[in-house]
Amino acid sequence: MTRPPTVVLPARQGEHRYQVHVGPGALEPLAGLAGDHDRVAVVTCARVARTPAARKALARLRRTGRLAAVVLLPDGEKGKTLAQLERGAVKLLAAGMTRRSLVVSIGGGAVSDAAGFLAATFMRGLPWVAVPTTLLAMVDAALGGKTAVNLPRAKNAVGAFHPPLAVLADPGALDTLPGRELRSGLGEVVKYGLLDPALLGRISDAGAGRPGAELVAACMAAKLRVVEADPTERGARALLNLGHTFGHGVEAAGGFARYTHGEAVALGLVFAFRLAARLGRIGPLAVAEAEAAVAGAGLPTRLPPAQARRAAALMVHDKKRTSSGLRWVLPRQVDGARWTVEWGVEAGPLAVAAAVAELGS
Amino acid sequence: MTRPPTVVLPARQGEHRYQVHVGPGALEPLAGLAGDHDRVAVVTCARVARTPAARKALARLRRTGRLAAVVLLPDGEKGKTLAQLERGAVKLLAAGMTRRSLVVSIGGGAVSDAAGFLAATFMRGLPWVAVPTTLLAMVDAALGGKTAVNLPRAKNAVGAFHPPLAVLADPGALDTLPGRELRSGLGEVVKYGLLDPALLGRISDAGAGRPGAELVAACMAAKLRVVEADPTERGARALLNLGHTFGHGVEAAGGFARYTHGEAVALGLVFAFRLAARLGRIGPLAVAEAEAAVAGAGLPTRLPPAQARRAAALMVHDKKRTSSGLRWVLPRQVDGARWTVEWGVEAGPLAVAAAVAELGS
Repeated sequence: MTRPPTVVLPARQGEHRYQVHVGPGALEPLAGLAGDHDRVAVVTCARVARTPAARKALARLRRTGRLAAVVLLPDGEKGKTLAQLERGAVKLLAAGMTRRSLVVSIGGGAVSDAAGFLAATFMRGLPWVAVPTTLLAMVDAALGGKTAVNLPRAKNAVGAFHPPLAVLADPGALDTLPGRELRSGLGEVVKYGLLDPALLGRISDAGAGRPGAELVAACMAAKLRVVEADPTERGARALLNLGHTFGHGVEAAGGFARYTHGEAVALGLVFAFRLAARLGRIGPLAVAEAEAAVAGAGLPTRLPPAQARRAAALMVHDKKRTSSGLRWVLPRQVDGARWTVEWGVEAGPLAVAAAVAELGS
Repeated sequence: MTRPPTVVLPARQGEHRYQVHVGPGALEPLAGLAGDHDRVAVVTCARVARTPAARKALARLRRTGRLAAVVLLPDGEKGKTLAQLERGAVKLLAAGMTRRSLVVSIGGGAVSDAAGFLAATFMRGLPWVAVPTTLLAMVDAALGGKTAVNLPRAKNAVGAFHPPLAVLADPGALDTLPGRELRSGLGEVVKYGLLDPALLGRISDAGAGRPGAELVAACMAAKLRVVEADPTERGARALLNLGHTFGHGVEAAGGFARYTHGEAVALGLVFAFRLAARLGRIGPLAVAEAEAAVAGAGLPTRLPPAQARRAAALMVHDKKRTSSGLRWVLPRQVDGARWTVEWGVEAGPLAVAAAVAELGS
């Protein structure tokens, strides 16, 4: 059996440059990165800390003799609060962490969002390295430098742009990932496919199984290209929010527990295509193709009507909102078979309500 | 009576440029700045909200029709907590604030530190305008983009670099400032004098009274020059920490209540000169001159021995610390009468202990 190669993707955000390693040898740079700093603190959560992937990364760091603290967050979104940020910062302080120390995040999207925000704000900013262990963290959360915690009623409402020093992604970690966690990342994988027709075919071929290292790397490269063009989300980066406006509403409507992020994004993707069809921007074939991609990945395309209405009501807290209302990321047909995705699209309340009704069934 | 002119100082931090208005007409740009944004939230505290200066600024903002929220923080350091940050962010969210909205801080150093950090992190960053109403905020806290809140045992331990869109300082606000609040800023004024001999004479002439608009503007210009050279505190900006390593220890030792920031910095300045003398870097005349400047401004040069020892023990949480210990900002004699200030100076434990003993008497 030949081991697939480890790919190194160059990443750039403004003046900050870093490297993204994807493959079975991705963790190899970890000891060297730790060695460049006086102390290292690991941020992870209980669920992740028990996995072979996390134990392997922790063991590498212990051997450097620099490991000064392990901050164990509550699992999932419960770890993304300002109270947990304070607890983590107090622990870093007690461990003697300075501006010359390093934070290493080991975990899924929630861990990397919270760990990155802790690194962004402790002593006004330390460097950090992301070791994503879930599909969602690999293809989305750990890339691009968006870090945040939640407010009681709004996800990611308090945060910072703080790109990491390196991202080290070993897709081997996905082998032991529970099915629900895997589906949480598949929503973003399908999103990249709907943004880029060349990827869509490869995603359909992979079906509802575990995407291989090459598909993971292709999704990561797709995100890095968009982020490089627009590091602080003033323009083109908004494309990455395809499916996320309604998706965030779905997550909030379910108390951030009923739907995984990927399931919510999947529903948001279907919503975006249905809304675009209502606005006459795309035809029924594009809608069918998007729904087939979502369903093919084992993700939902419908939700109970009451949940759909509640999700729509909670969309108002979207960060991309302006004073005159929501702005949408929506597809537009360019010829018989293809579409392009545009941002900043307006939609009237009747079209939105009709799309909500279509999803809730 | 001729009204003194309003000075406009150009400020630059990295690629970010902004203007600092100092004088009786400083608030005039406020309505225009509010008009450039969809909504405005004011962050202030109860003590400040009652003052004529704050009422004047609030009235100007109300007339624009853009004022969507007033976040009232607890007075002083009690407002600089992550719990208050969360309360403020929830209020901004409820008021419909977006990334196109504006935060206006009206108050002293604690308010501008906390308001700036709220602006830095809400939706990952909104623009903000600082309206400093105390001497400390004018000559220090509102300038330079350092924002932060405290951890239970460490001041400013969680924060961000987020320079404001404008700083609007009307020294008329100082006319109604209580004496203790005024002294809180005088420590920084004396610090600028000890960094720049040309300023020292003007400060001595002003004595322990209220510094005029021109002296305030000179101190602000001194800070802006250093910040421009080093926006994220990697080198020369460390000079502004003269007196602050021991000073922060003094504040912590007194539970952030016994000494004002200015009193603590004053003690830290005396400490720095005494430590430098112990290390043979300066002679007794420089120490005497520094102490005379501190005492001439009505600030303390000694503290109880137990407080001095406790302050020394609490210095270890200093943000400029490296793994090998504290690095000091200390003067060095350049000829018979003058000194220069350098950063990154090492000092052995015996010299530090001796200087601690000298202050505690």
